[in-house]
Amino acid sequence: MKGFLDLAHLGHDGVVDLLGLAGRLAERPEPFALAGRTLGLVFFNPSLRTLASMQVAMAQLGGTSFVITPGSGSWDLETRIGAVMNGKAAEHIREAIPVLASYCDILGVRAFAEGRDLATDLTEPAFGQIAALCDKPLVNLESAANHPCQALADWKTLDDLAVPRRAKFVLSWANHPRALPIAVPAAAAHMAALRGMEVVVLRPEGFALPEPVMQKARDAAAATGGSITETTDRKAAFAGAHVVYVKEWGSTAHYGDAAADAAARAALGDWTLDESWFAGAAPGCRLMHCLPVRRNVAVTDELLDGPRSVVLPQAHNRLVVQRAVLHRLLASRGRAAIAA
Amino acid sequence: MKGFLDLAHLGHDGVVDLLGLAGRLAERPEPFALAGRTLGLVFFNPSLRTLASMQVAMAQLGGTSFVITPGSGSWDLETRIGAVMNGKAAEHIREAIPVLASYCDILGVRAFAEGRDLATDLTEPAFGQIAALCDKPLVNLESAANHPCQALADWKTLDDLAVPRRAKFVLSWANHPRALPIAVPAAAAHMAALRGMEVVVLRPEGFALPEPVMQKARDAAAATGGSITETTDRKAAFAGAHVVYVKEWGSTAHYGDAAADAAARAALGDWTLDESWFAGAAPGCRLMHCLPVRRNVAVTDELLDGPRSVVLPQAHNRLVVQRAVLHRLLASRGRAAIAA
Amino acid sequence: MKGFLDLAHLGHDGVVDLLGLAGRLAERPEPFALAGRTLGLVFFNPSLRTLASMQVAMAQLGGTSFVITPGSGSWDLETRIGAVMNGKAAEHIREAIPVLASYCDILGVRAFAEGRDLATDLTEPAFGQIAALCDKPLVNLESAANHPCQALADWKTLDDLAVPRRAKFVLSWANHPRALPIAVPAAAAHMAALRGMEVVVLRPEGFALPEPVMQKARDAAAATGGSITETTDRKAAFAGAHVVYVKEWGSTAHYGDAAADAAARAALGDWTLDESWFAGAAPGCRLMHCLPVRRNVAVTDELLDGPRSVVLPQAHNRLVVQRAVLHRLLASRGRAAIAA
Repeated sequence: MKGFLDLAHLGHDGVVDLLGLAGRLAERPEPFALAGRTLGLVFFNPSLRTLASMQVAMAQLGGTSFVITPGSGSWDLETRIGAVMNGKAAEHIREAIPVLASYCDILGVRAFAEGRDLATDLTEPAFGQIAALCDKPLVNLESAANHPCQALADWKTLDDLAVPRRAKFVLSWANHPRALPIAVPAAAAHMAALRGMEVVVLRPEGFALPEPVMQKARDAAAATGGSITETTDRKAAFAGAHVVYVKEWGSTAHYGDAAADAAARAALGDWTLDESWFAGAAPGCRLMHCLPVRRNVAVTDELLDGPRSVVLPQAHNRLVVQRAVLHRLLASRGRAAIAA
Repeated sequence: MKGFLDLAHLGHDGVVDLLGLAGRLAERPEPFALAGRTLGLVFFNPSLRTLASMQVAMAQLGGTSFVITPGSGSWDLETRIGAVMNGKAAEHIREAIPVLASYCDILGVRAFAEGRDLATDLTEPAFGQIAALCDKPLVNLESAANHPCQALADWKTLDDLAVPRRAKFVLSWANHPRALPIAVPAAAAHMAALRGMEVVVLRPEGFALPEPVMQKARDAAAATGGSITETTDRKAAFAGAHVVYVKEWGSTAHYGDAAADAAARAALGDWTLDESWFAGAAPGCRLMHCLPVRRNVAVTDELLDGPRSVVLPQAHNRLVVQRAVLHRLLASRGRAAIAA
Repeated sequence: MKGFLDLAHLGHDGVVDLLGLAGRLAERPEPFALAGRTLGLVFFNPSLRTLASMQVAMAQLGGTSFVITPGSGSWDLETRIGAVMNGKAAEHIREAIPVLASYCDILGVRAFAEGRDLATDLTEPAFGQIAALCDKPLVNLESAANHPCQALADWKTLDDLAVPRRAKFVLSWANHPRALPIAVPAAAAHMAALRGMEVVVLRPEGFALPEPVMQKARDAAAATGGSITETTDRKAAFAGAHVVYVKEWGSTAHYGDAAADAAARAALGDWTLDESWFAGAAPGCRLMHCLPVRRNVAVTDELLDGPRSVVLPQAHNRLVVQRAVLHRLLASRGRAAIAA
């Protein structure tokens, strides 16, 4: 493993193996595994869980971290190739990323979608460049269209709950005051498909996941015996569901058009999940969400504070799995080198 | 000790005991006492001393820290129960606090008063919720109406100066460009009363400390042989004073009314402490202040740079006592568990 | 060495000796040299390299760091002596610096020029005060008119490239959207002169380096057999150049006058360095820049991405030399004490 950029790079068995390491490190801590190693963290966008859990994961393995926040304490960074830099950004990622990579043993970067053009964002213009500029192991801390750390924690959460491999996994859209990126729904759909689940994406008209996202999940499902379908039929989607994964995302039909997106979601005021949605679900159906969640807009207090919700153990698993990612990328590599 | 929320929970002898630990750790460092442990720090409000000294205290005991600043690098956090979250805050403390607590061994939180309604702020609406949501040891880094880390450092400073237990301790109001919370004056009055001192609160009309704050200090005084009174008479207050603790706070008569508060303090331009105030004080009377202090508004340069001022050793004691708080909450607990 | 404030304090042989330590630490890491030690970092201004590399340097020597950013998470700090503090700043450096120094073993501070009056800025009004207030070893992380960490890294970069001591070093002005401080050009000119090089400062009319800056470089050159001259003649300056160090700075003729400065640089649109500038340079002439650099404003993509550029190893050397600075100020001191 040279970096942690996409669950698809690991495949089903690779994920199972990595989660095995996560479990072993939880049972038998290795507080000196990354002694002397440094993790650089670059956050182009806000963070709570990722910011805290990456630092803690590194510390629990004996390493240290530093945090760079472009635009807040550090220079705004330009990402456009060939830009004439006479604007706000004082530095280009073509310098910033190699320099920061040269200071640390492993780099983690969060860089959300620009949100103007869907096809462009799906090509990961910023993160792709960053990956090409980084000669150290790189961890994707959420890019335009992916969030593999979240997906790995989600898989572990399903395992912890003993959700059967073939269970029905509903990825349900929910409302939000404004358009959010498709990174988490794309990663969650792919993760569940790769796990072999029966994945149903429930979303209103105009909010279909992009075809390349669906195709990637289909490919994963094909390899593992899972399936993935999309629907606007709430009742059909929830019927027999074992897990409902809620996520807010922007209109893909009106991508980059804030006014049209707002108009579309203004008509979707009933897409706040509450207990009534679960009438036909399987007994003990669980509610997942990657957080942050807007209470009483995306999901009611009742659901989040009730027995279905596993959002807190799900968030805790971010720490558990990231410890394994860091260990695999640095310590295991070191051991392999020693063995060789 | 399950958390460090209020000096009142320790009582006089508990504070003396904890300061004994602080002294022992200063003489005989324990650089591995908290090896592998993590301190999470959440700052809803600005900080200099607390931000630096908590991280250093943790490092000097062998542990590590992470810092979360809601609204700057991390999401704005909602604190109102039942809120429909369609505004600025992307996340609720009902998720954020348990998640962060799950990543660390001990959590420290700073959450100032909202400053709208005095009775509400005295109930600690935000910090009380946070404490209820946190299943790890919690340290109050200044809440709406308390600042126990500061109070503990202040007590140690009095001990270091060999200020007698029964000495006269004047808590003097001073001017400031705008209303500040009552957390520090409330904590300082209670601390001095609990130490057994003769406490006099000097403040203009309209700036009386709230009755529950005075009652808490009275209860502490009653238990230790101290006393607490309030006055507007500057000369009487300073007569024979051994220590003057200066603090700025907002008008309690006009709490939450910025215009009325500003009008009230506009008439109090002579409440900038200078050497002349100390004419009738005891020889060697000291000047304390928790910092930050606005020079030549609250206190003159002459006083702050002169021999009365102990604000620098007082600030340094934040580090000394917080080391003991962290040790008591984590290391001592660990040892007890091992002994049991 | 009691602090690291100016390369001039070390002199030629002192720099060579310190770079020797930097080399030894790169070859034979000392991961426990600063165990238990804490570095306080205060950034009045933005940073990327310094912020990251100082933390990493400290971690690689076994120590820890904390970061204070006045105005972002921490109080705005007043620097004017005697100020009546009824404005934005809640705290004065007269308290903040001694307090932070009391929490750590070594303090690093970045405080750029105010940019109003050149003569004033050359006296280092803020940093000079800070140095006087700090009783721990202090590292200058860029002040109004100096940047010794950068200069030390630059010297090491020249050594790494085996640039002869007597080689021609051109410090070339380049354009930028607004006036920047003279700290880096002043430090670079002095560094190259102290190394014994033939230093030529190339800049347009109105952008001459201040006479005290030139005199300091002249003094250094006199001691080491180097030289320093200024010119507006691009062709003459580049003729036979072995190294071109590019830097943007504000008009010294119109210092503090943003409109006049902007008007002056508006007429200098051809001061974007590209390959054509190097026509008469020595074979293999290198391009240095301290970063951040505005691509296609100060320097073209072609040059920065081409074989002349050494900006990435130059930036990496910040880590290499700062490790030595920290070690010399803390660990070596400790060893001397032990030996004594």
